[in-house]
Amino acid sequence: MSALPLHPRFVSLEGGEGAGKTTVLAALRAALEAGDREVVVTREPGGTPLAEKIRALLLQPDDEAVAADTELLLMFAARAQHVRTTVLPALERGAWVLCDRFTDSSYAYQGGGRGLDADFIEALERRVVGIRPGLTLLLDLDVAQGRERIQGRDPRPDRIERERAAFFERARATFLARAAAEPQRFRVVDASRAVEQVVADAVAALRAFAERA
Amino acid sequence: MSALPLHPRFVSLEGGEGAGKTTVLAALRAALEAGDREVVVTREPGGTPLAEKIRALLLQPDDEAVAADTELLLMFAARAQHVRTTVLPALERGAWVLCDRFTDSSYAYQGGGRGLDADFIEALERRVVGIRPGLTLLLDLDVAQGRERIQGRDPRPDRIERERAAFFERARATFLARAAAEPQRFRVVDASRAVEQVVADAVAALRAFAERA
Repeated sequence: MSALPLHPRFVSLEGGEGAGKTTVLAALRAALEAGDREVVVTREPGGTPLAEKIRALLLQPDDEAVAADTELLLMFAARAQHVRTTVLPALERGAWVLCDRFTDSSYAYQGGGRGLDADFIEALERRVVGIRPGLTLLLDLDVAQGRERIQGRDPRPDRIERERAAFFERARATFLARAAAEPQRFRVVDASRAVEQVVADAVAALRAFAERA
Repeated sequence: MSALPLHPRFVSLEGGEGAGKTTVLAALRAALEAGDREVVVTREPGGTPLAEKIRALLLQPDDEAVAADTELLLMFAARAQHVRTTVLPALERGAWVLCDRFTDSSYAYQGGGRGLDADFIEALERRVVGIRPGLTLLLDLDVAQGRERIQGRDPRPDRIERERAAFFERARATFLARAAAEPQRFRVVDASRAVEQVVADAVAALRAFAERA
């Protein structure tokens, strides 16, 4: 099958707990805006009012066990809505889109983490997404180190944050395998270092990408 | 591809607006329970607490236009949860399951109505549902007649009920085509007649099916 198109103004940020995603996202936004660009910062799951409601269903801890297929389809329902309502209109009018998590997270968490087969995820991606970011920044961090960093940060972890370390180990391995398979799209940033270094590397990678756009 | 298995204790009821589905469902339940069977009456979208929350997202009229793929994936997310949490456990313990709408509705409304391709719907059905009812009762009614019957019944129609007549014409045609293609599973009941006759035909079809189970 042919590769999905990579968009030259679409950037996603991926990474596990404690990797500094929030701080890096703010720095990436500032770097793009300094270049006088329109920047749409968005997130997944979410990014439209309906998709945010789907996010709430996905993340709220509840008594009912959520089937893995249910979780995956909810993720892609939210993504289908987000892509059509927010991402594509922004790209079409010339804006940059900076997205906190995108389809790679489904491969990592529902695929690697929950064990769903990548073929089905790819079929959904081709059918309802049809696009990949031109640049995906992966903040890579040892799972135990990430969990240590967020100790005490959130007294009420969401449904997915409550998973065991092995789940996040599989997700990390999936992210790294995807980065290795698509070196033209991914930049892996070692997030074990001080946040200033992580931010500096991420911004440098974004600047190099933006110069080519 | 091989046909999906038809379950001998799983009955779905399909039909458009004003066809008498609620009245027929109550009569079908009574007929089964008279035979001293455990009967689980459920509905789609819905049938579990999470799936009912997805139903609310699907049906509430809102300012945000819902993409057809989003609607389809939400339907199948709810269905994946419903099948695993409610339908299969009931069938496995020997109960009968009587379901107000099932996968045929996705072929009719998202396929016929919204124009999504049946191949994608079937791929989702095979992947996340994997089972069909042994008996599907289709209450067939002319769209205009159905709309006339419900005039004034609900002052606040849901998001899908607000569609134009042509949408429901396409859905009806899809239901009829599916019934013609699977005569061993479908029984089409002419719902243009008095409700007592519709109920009598539906109950007779169910009894004939139950005798074979």
